[in-house]
Amino acid sequence: MEWLNTPARAPNTATTEAARLRQSQLTKPPGALGELEAVAIRLAGLQGREQPAVDKVHISVFAADHGVAEEGVSAFPQAVTAQMVHNFLNGGAAINVLAQTLGATLEIIDVGIKTPLTHPKLISQRAGNGTANSTLSPAMSDTQLNLALQAGADAAERAYATRAELFIGGEMGIANTTAATAIYCTLLKVAIPEATGAGTGLDQVGIAHKVSVIQRIIKQHRHHLDKPLEVLRHLGGFEIAALTGAYVRAAQLGLPILIDGFISTAAALIATKLQPGVAHWLFLSHASAEPGHVFAMAELKQRPLLDLNLRLGEGSGAAIAVPLLRLACALHNQMATFDEAAVAGKL
Amino acid sequence: MEWLNTPARAPNTATTEAARLRQSQLTKPPGALGELEAVAIRLAGLQGREQPAVDKVHISVFAADHGVAEEGVSAFPQAVTAQMVHNFLNGGAAINVLAQTLGATLEIIDVGIKTPLTHPKLISQRAGNGTANSTLSPAMSDTQLNLALQAGADAAERAYATRAELFIGGEMGIANTTAATAIYCTLLKVAIPEATGAGTGLDQVGIAHKVSVIQRIIKQHRHHLDKPLEVLRHLGGFEIAALTGAYVRAAQLGLPILIDGFISTAAALIATKLQPGVAHWLFLSHASAEPGHVFAMAELKQRPLLDLNLRLGEGSGAAIAVPLLRLACALHNQMATFDEAAVAGKL
Repeated sequence: MEWLNTPARAPNTATTEAARLRQSQLTKPPGALGELEAVAIRLAGLQGREQPAVDKVHISVFAADHGVAEEGVSAFPQAVTAQMVHNFLNGGAAINVLAQTLGATLEIIDVGIKTPLTHPKLISQRAGNGTANSTLSPAMSDTQLNLALQAGADAAERAYATRAELFIGGEMGIANTTAATAIYCTLLKVAIPEATGAGTGLDQVGIAHKVSVIQRIIKQHRHHLDKPLEVLRHLGGFEIAALTGAYVRAAQLGLPILIDGFISTAAALIATKLQPGVAHWLFLSHASAEPGHVFAMAELKQRPLLDLNLRLGEGSGAAIAVPLLRLACALHNQMATFDEAAVAGKL
Repeated sequence: MEWLNTPARAPNTATTEAARLRQSQLTKPPGALGELEAVAIRLAGLQGREQPAVDKVHISVFAADHGVAEEGVSAFPQAVTAQMVHNFLNGGAAINVLAQTLGATLEIIDVGIKTPLTHPKLISQRAGNGTANSTLSPAMSDTQLNLALQAGADAAERAYATRAELFIGGEMGIANTTAATAIYCTLLKVAIPEATGAGTGLDQVGIAHKVSVIQRIIKQHRHHLDKPLEVLRHLGGFEIAALTGAYVRAAQLGLPILIDGFISTAAALIATKLQPGVAHWLFLSHASAEPGHVFAMAELKQRPLLDLNLRLGEGSGAAIAVPLLRLACALHNQMATFDEAAVAGKL
């Protein structure tokens, strides 16, 4: 896994500054387009061109099962992971509708569903038959971790090879808010009850049980959580590892990344611990309804673009934010300047 | 102005309930698409069809000048109103870029720029050569108020006649945050310094001066601010009156309305005072950077879709939110149900 040691590409400061200057000349009061101005300027620096674009969007959804599901931490049965992958392959899920509406490329990668599926559209890079139950043993072995990281890196490579202008990672895995919450609490030193939420729809009793399971997980592995990759290996899951690999590789290749929600942000936290320069390449799409998410947004020092109480995963929240990036680019690239329009500036 | 007395159309409760049922059957945890689910359900009720759509969007931008500009309440000279109208007509402003990107119809209506313009694409329904300086006299006469309200109603009629599925009103008028802030403070009983902001970019000294001007305006007219139309007539401006007329008429015709920012929301407040049923037809697009806006959002009992620190006007914030409504409809209409996809429901 030597590629993990390569730093993220550095943004282009010349195109960043050119874009900032352009923004100041457009026919609007300075700053009147708020966060969209910052988005356009950041994208200009990342893409190395004064006029950025995110027309070509690549979405990779990683699916895997979690041994910890047997602890009863999800409102849905474990079989739903595979059933939803079928739904993705048949075009019926939220992320299919979003990808089609946006004209984005969508690929589904099995990185370790419990029972393998075969389907002509499914990319199979399995790290195992689901992770181990992390209340009892590490979620995965070193070999499995590397397979999952590599599956993510490969997705970023495919996006780059097809000249994508934006990478979105999504995930599906029943019980994965449990794994992600354990990662948040470990990396951000947040109390478990403060960070634990309803996931796909637990009630208060279910959330209390989930808290106790996460307490057992962290207690079980407490002597092995000093390095980011060990956190990932012990707490899981395969799809979180794949997203981590995808984010690190995308940032190395110079591909901007739009982060989805709670699970994806866990991977982003690990990716930025591995290579701090990855942070330059990340855009946060939305504030998740999961309570732990605020702590990660603070750590990543970014405000998300949306706050719509989304908690679906699949990359859906990121996809929903894509039009904002596109409009930010259109405004930046196409508005007239004060000179062109003969409009007076500030008094 | 008898049309003002007609109530807003009532939403269709049958299609609302059909849409709510449909949402509960889609392959996602209940509520996982957050506010987008509520948007789709509301639109279904307003449009009277279980599967709503906002493909066809009509944007009317109303421009007018304000006599109170002579009090030095704006960071930009008054001439910018007409200059920006030229920019709209030549396609160089933010709202042009947004309308084109969204495939929306855009029309520009002069409801009272100081010096008349002639341009083949400009709709001229002038209520005067700018309003009077409201620190000294009512901003407009009864006749002028009616002309401006009618200009707005006519725009809603044009949108309806062309089968628009969503109406957006925008505005341009140097000094119009002063008029709008006076309306907010009067209708919502908010202290003037709490509601007064930078507009197009005043500094702290400028904001303090603007507060003192608004205090003089409200003191001047304090005995004539008991009815919503009198508030509008005394405080101005023509474009706010036009937006008010447009919102009332759109709601009467059964056309959903996406509200832009601070100025548009002042018109929405008056429209809902005139006909409370208008509230059913309003969607708030974004939280304005102007500090008074939060009080209006509370009054209208809605959370906006976006909070991106926008403060441009022109209808731009509403236009930026259009893709969210479209994606809400696409998800609602196109996702598979649990039955169709053979996915298990909650445990």
